[in-house]
Amino acid sequence: MRMKAHLTRIVHFCAAHRYYRPEWSEERNRAEFGNCANSPGHGHNYECAVTVAGVLNELTSMVMPLDDLDRLLDQKVVKRFDHDFINTVAEEFGPGKTIPTAEAVAVFIWDELQPELPEGVVLSRVRVKENETLYADYFGEKI
Amino acid sequence: MRMKAHLTRIVHFCAAHRYYRPEWSEERNRAEFGNCANSPGHGHNYECAVTVAGVLNELTSMVMPLDDLDRLLDQKVVKRFDHDFINTVAEEFGPGKTIPTAEAVAVFIWDELQPELPEGVVLSRVRVKENETLYADYFGEKI
Amino acid sequence: MRMKAHLTRIVHFCAAHRYYRPEWSEERNRAEFGNCANSPGHGHNYECAVTVAGVLNELTSMVMPLDDLDRLLDQKVVKRFDHDFINTVAEEFGPGKTIPTAEAVAVFIWDELQPELPEGVVLSRVRVKENETLYADYFGEKI
Amino acid sequence: MRMKAHLTRIVHFCAAHRYYRPEWSEERNRAEFGNCANSPGHGHNYECAVTVAGVLNELTSMVMPLDDLDRLLDQKVVKRFDHDFINTVAEEFGPGKTIPTAEAVAVFIWDELQPELPEGVVLSRVRVKENETLYADYFGEKI
Amino acid sequence: MRMKAHLTRIVHFCAAHRYYRPEWSEERNRAEFGNCANSPGHGHNYECAVTVAGVLNELTSMVMPLDDLDRLLDQKVVKRFDHDFINTVAEEFGPGKTIPTAEAVAVFIWDELQPELPEGVVLSRVRVKENETLYADYFGEKI
Amino acid sequence: MRMKAHLTRIVHFCAAHRYYRPEWSEERNRAEFGNCANSPGHGHNYECAVTVAGVLNELTSMVMPLDDLDRLLDQKVVKRFDHDFINTVAEEFGPGKTIPTAEAVAVFIWDELQPELPEGVVLSRVRVKENETLYADYFGEKI
Repeated sequence: MRMKAHLTRIVHFCAAHRYYRPEWSEERNRAEFGNCANSPGHGHNYECAVTVAGVLNELTSMVMPLDDLDRLLDQKVVKRFDHDFINTVAEEFGPGKTIPTAEAVAVFIWDELQPELPEGVVLSRVRVKENETLYADYFGEKI
Repeated sequence: MRMKAHLTRIVHFCAAHRYYRPEWSEERNRAEFGNCANSPGHGHNYECAVTVAGVLNELTSMVMPLDDLDRLLDQKVVKRFDHDFINTVAEEFGPGKTIPTAEAVAVFIWDELQPELPEGVVLSRVRVKENETLYADYFGEKI
Repeated sequence: MRMKAHLTRIVHFCAAHRYYRPEWSEERNRAEFGNCANSPGHGHNYECAVTVAGVLNELTSMVMPLDDLDRLLDQKVVKRFDHDFINTVAEEFGPGKTIPTAEAVAVFIWDELQPELPEGVVLSRVRVKENETLYADYFGEKI
Repeated sequence: MRMKAHLTRIVHFCAAHRYYRPEWSEERNRAEFGNCANSPGHGHNYECAVTVAGVLNELTSMVMPLDDLDRLLDQKVVKRFDHDFINTVAEEFGPGKTIPTAEAVAVFIWDELQPELPEGVVLSRVRVKENETLYADYFGEKI
Repeated sequence: MRMKAHLTRIVHFCAAHRYYRPEWSEERNRAEFGNCANSPGHGHNYECAVTVAGVLNELTSMVMPLDDLDRLLDQKVVKRFDHDFINTVAEEFGPGKTIPTAEAVAVFIWDELQPELPEGVVLSRVRVKENETLYADYFGEKI
Repeated sequence: MRMKAHLTRIVHFCAAHRYYRPEWSEERNRAEFGNCANSPGHGHNYECAVTVAGVLNELTSMVMPLDDLDRLLDQKVVKRFDHDFINTVAEEFGPGKTIPTAEAVAVFIWDELQPELPEGVVLSRVRVKENETLYADYFGEKI
């Protein structure tokens, strides 16, 4: 019988984003997105908390080697978004595609990380926090 | 197949409260509630984190329009409690009724918010934090 | 030649207060103090940061023994205000006297602590923080 | 029908720890644990958040008396670890046994607290946070 | 003899900015500003802490009416920068002019606020924080 | 006429330390240092905030290039102390020498950094924070 625990690592990136659908009028963009539609965009100090779950390794008492998790987060999250414009960082957030809300960025990061985890370790939550009063959680749920 | 996410917005209010049952003696109030029984009360900078869950809208990538959520929290939580005395704000916390613990305030806020959410969106958690070391979570569980 | 440093210890207390001058009309109290005039009051998680300055002791490398500072802050600040109503805790904040703003509480705490410090140690700042966006500093300045 | 809520109390302790398996070579310890293998160790300001769950008492509106929870956490967590070396505090973390990761400390604290809770109250989570970017959660899962 | 105190109010705004001198080559911009030169920019959750100093009013125990300070900060700081691009918000930060570092934004805000304060009240510090590890302070010093 | 500003960068390191004078008895060590005298020591998540002051460069609007400041702090502070035992990191904190209090570590870091700053830039404060309630400031004062 082995214990299963959850480990959360938090990384940060500073990025800009803009909410805007080019197929909509200025008025509708303003009505739906308020000042998030301002050009060229505004920005945040994003905080991304990634939680992995698995049984504790009997020799290291770890869910997974922390260095490996850190390398993965640096490569897939920080290097990708830090000091950049989310709308152009990934094709998915390009014009007419996905609006880069905290919810959508959390889903994107989940999909990037899930295939990279070692066997026996699973993502249990990706949290994307835009500021001290707003964050989105994605648990991999699809319906 | 659509993704389901959870969105948390945090609001704050500064309020006073007192733990006291008028049908009990001073001694019993003191024994059960310690210095929380002091008259006329003491106060906190409350933090209330409300989490809603739902599928992401395909055009806005949001669980629900953030402005609507903000208006609801302002009306039902902040305007109601801020710079006031919880024991008199709602009949439910009046003399001889519910003691305004963090647990009870979380249940109260859940019951206020649940009927106001748009179709397809549900509350998934109401957290009421009294200070940096104490908070209560209510997930709508009844047994 | 000896180094002089500043040491800050932070303590917390949860208290209620009310801004109200009985010699004024309800209207004037409301106009000057807004919802801080609500009866019986509202409250905060106060944070009080006390800074002492002095040369480092050659054997302990301390400005003053930390246990002594902690005892003093517990007795003069925490025990006095925690879970209580500032307007009645000290005669100075009673009806018709000093309004218990963060500024006034900082001055009060300075005057309580200054005479109790060991020789060669001086207060350099008393900070009283009402919440994450508002704090008052008193450096002992009188003009 | 009674409401069930979750109450979280957070306590802190400052402790040192070292990751090292005496049956391994210096090289392997270094490879697995990096600078966490440094002698005699390094340390953290640990934060331990303990969540208990239960129905609200009808008279006190509490999951359990807060004083009782605080006494338990002080005795089983703070007094045990604060200003000490985790590897020697409990036999379980001694040489050749369990490496004192955040994951393992969370499991240890769960096992210490669970038998001490009053009837009808259960642990729902033990969180051990090493610093602002890393924490482990244990929910009592064994597989 | 009247007590002089300092009062600090903190406001927040989310904005984007870019470090770039059009009269320099891409290489020099990159060398001087690193990824802060990325187009169209990146962003932060800015925190601006404004400190005013003055004697305590004898009737209100305040350095200045808090509502007046809040209105001023909302008008001159939050409304101006929030959800916008600093490089275009003020002519001063336009192409070929002042690079919008935290230092420069602090100086700008000082110059905006100073003429608006009531008689007898002075600015004592403007702090602009870009993130949890970087902030600039301006005390009005010119040399 | 040029503006002078202050820029603060915060870095972190996790380290262990012990307060102990070998020339004193166990009893005196215990009396002076309490549980800080425990062997082999305990630890903290240290936060070190270094403030530099100077006039803003006319082309970059910076007190000094941030990359240079970061390299200096990484080399002289983080690399030196992180995941290590302060008492053995520098000869100055060895047995019978300086007790590694927050005050003494702040003085040490000041003396390390001061000679490395570019011309025209001066240290204005070194802050060493042991935990959320205790920090020491050194402004270079000697008497």
